Amino acid sequence: MADRAPAQLIDGKVFSERLRAEVAVEVSRLRAEHNLQPGLAVVLVGEDAASQIYVRSKGEQSLAAGMHSVTHRMPADASQHDLMRLIAELNEDPLIHGILVQLPLPKHLDEKPVLAAINPDKDVDGLHVVNAGRLASGLPGLYPCTPMGSMILLRETLGDLSGKRAVVVGRSVLVGRPIAQLLLQADCTVTVAHSRTQDLPAVCREADILVAAVGRPRMIRGDWIKPGAAVIDVGINRVPFDDPEKAAAGRTKVVGDVHFKEASQVAGWITPVPGGVGLMTVAVLLQNTVTAAKRLNGLA
Amino acid sequence: MADRAPAQLIDGKVFSERLRAEVAVEVSRLRAEHNLQPGLAVVLVGEDAASQIYVRSKGEQSLAAGMHSVTHRMPADASQHDLMRLIAELNEDPLIHGILVQLPLPKHLDEKPVLAAINPDKDVDGLHVVNAGRLASGLPGLYPCTPMGSMILLRETLGDLSGKRAVVVGRSVLVGRPIAQLLLQADCTVTVAHSRTQDLPAVCREADILVAAVGRPRMIRGDWIKPGAAVIDVGINRVPFDDPEKAAAGRTKVVGDVHFKEASQVAGWITPVPGGVGLMTVAVLLQNTVTAAKRLNGLA
Ligand SMILES: NC(=O)c1ccc[n+]([C@@H]2O[C@H](COP(=O)([O-])OP(=O)(O)OC[C@H]3O[C@@H](n4cnc5c(N)ncnc54)[C@H](OP(=O)(O)O)[C@@H]3O)[C@@H](O)[C@H]2O)c1
Ligand SMILES: NC(=O)c1ccc[n+]([C@@H]2O[C@H](COP(=O)([O-])OP(=O)(O)OC[C@H]3O[C@@H](n4cnc5c(N)ncnc54)[C@H](OP(=O)(O)O)[C@@H]3O)[C@@H](O)[C@H]2O)c1
Repeated sequence: MADRAPAQLIDGKVFSERLRAEVAVEVSRLRAEHNLQPGLAVVLVGEDAASQIYVRSKGEQSLAAGMHSVTHRMPADASQHDLMRLIAELNEDPLIHGILVQLPLPKHLDEKPVLAAINPDKDVDGLHVVNAGRLASGLPGLYPCTPMGSMILLRETLGDLSGKRAVVVGRSVLVGRPIAQLLLQADCTVTVAHSRTQDLPAVCREADILVAAVGRPRMIRGDWIKPGAAVIDVGINRVPFDDPEKAAAGRTKVVGDVHFKEASQVAGWITPVPGGVGLMTVAVLLQNTVTAAKRLNGLA
Repeated sequence: MADRAPAQLIDGKVFSERLRAEVAVEVSRLRAEHNLQPGLAVVLVGEDAASQIYVRSKGEQSLAAGMHSVTHRMPADASQHDLMRLIAELNEDPLIHGILVQLPLPKHLDEKPVLAAINPDKDVDGLHVVNAGRLASGLPGLYPCTPMGSMILLRETLGDLSGKRAVVVGRSVLVGRPIAQLLLQADCTVTVAHSRTQDLPAVCREADILVAAVGRPRMIRGDWIKPGAAVIDVGINRVPFDDPEKAAAGRTKVVGDVHFKEASQVAGWITPVPGGVGLMTVAVLLQNTVTAAKRLNGLA
């Protein structure tokens, strides 16, 4: 393995920029030909610093794509009732095609009824149980953004995925399971592994496509990977710097679930973290909003 | 392999009778303690001979379990509107907790809106997209009967399934996919294979639990099976008799997707066809109706 060429990078920056450019073209076509401007409403409750950043970025990127963009900020002590009323209004609003409630909500609010209240056809985060059912049933729907982003990276890199063996490590409702469903839809032979899996390294080694969605820094080692495989690292883990001085100073960095240095000596393709899947998520959110706008207007 | 003891039979008759007895006990408890009699409504449109038999059997078995049982027969030329109105009535009827529309419907009727109109909490066939979404999300719901029956057989035979490798051949929305979801919920490492899978025999040989839901008579051969594995054969295929005289006389019999004779020399446990999974389906339907009755009345 020592003389293998290192893996090719799957560059999330390139593919997310390309996707956003495609979305912008489609938005301008819809505006010109159908007088339809896809609209995204983002709801933020409270002052969480990270959430503020995410929400701002979603707003800016949707504007940059030519979309109608509204951010609703509610105070940290907003009531469940007020939040539900806002969702009901957005469901009715003909200018809004996508509704995203930024999570997590403040502790006194119950997330489940809020997500359940969103019109599934405006659920651009793909979290509604009806969209999970559509995905599981092979029906058109709106599907979660990070899994969709992972699929775009795979298709752009490998082309047709039919017949490939895919192993997804992680089975969360938000990430692992929907990725597995999308890989199955793409005609892969799909294995789902998780914390109860026995001999996980051997299971991973079966994979032509290995997706890590675990939340454990650098868990997946180089010798868990079949030479030449495509590795999609969904993990986002904050860890201390390797350099003991920087670590002692409390400095941290972000790494994936895959041991990148080892894995990139074995894999054929690999996503870096940061700079991989994570960058796709908002671009797919925009794409989902365009899809929703078209379907709600009978154009798709 | 020649001196291996043949596989133990997983006897659908024994387990389905046991399940129906358990359902009957629970029904009489609900009647005695809560004045609640679980009620199943079966809707049959038209005169299809096989459907008549299935519907009669469901009615008889629900009565035998002490349940309230209603069969609605509509003429073959019933309108979509009349059928939809009946579903709406059954959704409102407090004596009915389970609604089953016998499929297939006559050609002039559209099945999708009918199934979508059933209250998901009365959808004892588990076919509603909301129940598919609940299953995919690990939420309580009503799940399809044949997959649930397969799981009961596995648990009764193997006990805890955690960490076992399961391979499901077939990915239909009605059978393969829900079985895969249930196996994942039971903490198996689950692989889904299908017509695009490469080297299917090798994939099958990885399985501690092999589920065949393909619809191809005796496709899965003895040497596709890991010695000692548990084999669940969901297939129901009508084929000519092996005996050429009987075959020439047009006589047919039912076989599974697994080559039983070969497989039973290798497997540790195996379901026969007929006499295996198929017998569980109606028993689970009764169990689902009891579950629905309890949930609709706040008792579960
Ligand atoms: N790129 C993005 O935009 C994006 C979006 C969302 C999430 N993420 C990242 O993706 C990762 C996963 O997120 P999540 O929401 O899916 O996490 P999660 O809900 O915590 O699920 C983690 C999954 O990994 C499994 N697991 C845990 N330890 C394991 C082990 N030792 N061996 C094998 N499997 C193990 C768990 O198995 P059990 O089910 O058996 O417990 C579970 O299914 C996190 O790092 C998260 O930050 C990234
Ligand atoms: N016991 C019961 O009560 C019960 C209930 C329902 C069904 N069944 C029986 O179960 C069987 C399956 O039913 P179903 O409704 O799931 O059938 P289906 O909708 O026809 O699905 C068959 C599945 O098998 C896959 N397949 C077909 N040929 C294959 C091959 N050569 N190699 C690998 N996979 C192959 C198909 O793959 P693709 O997706 O790639 O096409 C598909 O996913 C049938 O025999 C049916 O009669 C029994």
